[in-house]
Amino acid sequence: MKKSYFRPVIDAMAGYVPGEQPKIDKLIKVNTNENPYPPAPGVFDTLHAFAANKLRLYPQPTADIARETIATLHGVDIDNVIAANGSDDTLNIAIRSFCGPGLPLACFNPSYSLYPVLAQMQEAPIIRINLAEGFRMPSDAAEQAAPANLLIITRPNAPTGNAFPMAEVRALIENFDGVVLVDEAYADFSDDNCMDLVREYDNLIVSRTMSKSYSLAGIRFGYAVACPELIEGMMKVKDSYNVDMLTQYIVRAALSDQEYLDKTRSIILATRARMEKELAKLGFTYVPSQTNFLFAAPPDNDGKRFFDVLRENAILVRYFPGEVTGRYVRISVGSDAEIDKLLEVAARLYG
Amino acid sequence: MKKSYFRPVIDAMAGYVPGEQPKIDKLIKVNTNENPYPPAPGVFDTLHAFAANKLRLYPQPTADIARETIATLHGVDIDNVIAANGSDDTLNIAIRSFCGPGLPLACFNPSYSLYPVLAQMQEAPIIRINLAEGFRMPSDAAEQAAPANLLIITRPNAPTGNAFPMAEVRALIENFDGVVLVDEAYADFSDDNCMDLVREYDNLIVSRTMSKSYSLAGIRFGYAVACPELIEGMMKVKDSYNVDMLTQYIVRAALSDQEYLDKTRSIILATRARMEKELAKLGFTYVPSQTNFLFAAPPDNDGKRFFDVLRENAILVRYFPGEVTGRYVRISVGSDAEIDKLLEVAARLYG
Repeated sequence: MKKSYFRPVIDAMAGYVPGEQPKIDKLIKVNTNENPYPPAPGVFDTLHAFAANKLRLYPQPTADIARETIATLHGVDIDNVIAANGSDDTLNIAIRSFCGPGLPLACFNPSYSLYPVLAQMQEAPIIRINLAEGFRMPSDAAEQAAPANLLIITRPNAPTGNAFPMAEVRALIENFDGVVLVDEAYADFSDDNCMDLVREYDNLIVSRTMSKSYSLAGIRFGYAVACPELIEGMMKVKDSYNVDMLTQYIVRAALSDQEYLDKTRSIILATRARMEKELAKLGFTYVPSQTNFLFAAPPDNDGKRFFDVLRENAILVRYFPGEVTGRYVRISVGSDAEIDKLLEVAARLYG
Repeated sequence: MKKSYFRPVIDAMAGYVPGEQPKIDKLIKVNTNENPYPPAPGVFDTLHAFAANKLRLYPQPTADIARETIATLHGVDIDNVIAANGSDDTLNIAIRSFCGPGLPLACFNPSYSLYPVLAQMQEAPIIRINLAEGFRMPSDAAEQAAPANLLIITRPNAPTGNAFPMAEVRALIENFDGVVLVDEAYADFSDDNCMDLVREYDNLIVSRTMSKSYSLAGIRFGYAVACPELIEGMMKVKDSYNVDMLTQYIVRAALSDQEYLDKTRSIILATRARMEKELAKLGFTYVPSQTNFLFAAPPDNDGKRFFDVLRENAILVRYFPGEVTGRYVRISVGSDAEIDKLLEVAARLYG
């Protein structure tokens, strides 16, 4: 066999597999938690009025246009904010900042499957804390996480959709002798969030994305809020020009229209409630959702079969193999028309 | 002192300092090698016709729209191409793929100062190969690079602007028992380039950017061409959605207009020739340039003084402190009007 030039850990990696983006005609795509509604009107205006000549210049390296808007939105200073090329970039920056050999990452299982991939790349030990019955935090989470230097709490959690109780999160942050990153990719769909805790804890990073609630997965933008010391160190790790120029302006436009966010969120929450109710009627069990997706198990607990039948009907959801997760499928909250079609297929199968 | 949560190597890092982007009125900005001319007309059309609603979706993860165009342009297969969020992302991916403790990076000195920063983050030993008189490759470059697993050859080199002879580059690739990355950020301004060598050597990666010759620093796009095995491994290291959706379409538009590239390049090469001639008349020495910048030393070899006086006149160039580099300033090839103003200041000082 030919010699590999790669670091052994890269050769050993399978790599993260993103949700499928197939080319099926008239596909109903409810597999990657995209928002069914367009981005805010200001995004269209920004894009179409943009002076393309400016693209010849490098973007402002720290994306201050976006950071200023974020700081205002959350009532923090610009020094509390780091901008990233999507939430995955934020996670990458954090794991490169705090994890390595002898500096383990702790995260929950099941959760976002990218975390262990990024830790593996850093040759950092990975502590997986299995969720208890009902995808709750186990009571000994703090003890299990103790050896780690970075603990990621996904809240609301993916792919399960529940949000761990705030009191439990707070207790974990207080009892953990390292950095806690709360991945709040779905927080805009949740009853509460951890953003205000950043003022209280200097070991806390809260991560957000524009991909879900702001309907901007295409532009790649995420950000994190933390104390200035943590932000300053992470700034050294990020690529100098990680956020492109157009994205910076689009982010400002989208974040500035909180009224539009409220409007689209309300529709999504209403559709989610209807999904929960209708699937329950058909005998589905589900995790009450605090996100823009629903983790639901068909009556026969055969997630794979439901996934396959949906796919035959040009409806794409996400399936996670595994003893527990394999009972479920993860369904993004699509438009009402899309969800109606999914419910029709479910009714034919299980009605 | 409060405990640091960061990896010790991150605390020790100064971080890469990008070229200054100051807010001076009517500034002539010839410090970061941006292109003075607008991007291709197709870029404007793409941007203004773009259906912003699509931004709600994730981009295609491997940027195939862009990769197909790149493959056609260079006469390679799509499997030979990886797309990145700017050339810095390509470098980051390569260094994370091939460098770490016991897997050193070799690069030339002076060269792009980001390389050692990225290697430091990987805790990879750094072998700096000092350039010989006239910024030529030293004759023992292969011996010096031998312990490294990745060798970066910047061709044309920055900030010096010269291109090492092809025969010497070829000899290095053949005699090096690791991966060679030729950073061709400026290759479109050079008499020749290494792209065709990718077909001959399975340890060669050629890196390009859209930031300079295509006048698209704002969109963040770079790519690398190599054998499929190297590309496949690097794909595991890149962020899943590292290139945003708009960028993918803009890249296709820009790369498809080679006529426009030729036109703007011709103007830049003519301006560069005039800069060389006029500065020589004033007693400057310079490195004959194969790039869109000129590394030029004023008659008194006091680069800092020239930098300062230019700055007082609202003209920003780049100055690199150091015994040899400090004699020079690096001047991007701006528009003719911009360069005229710079020449006026130079004539007042040294004429």
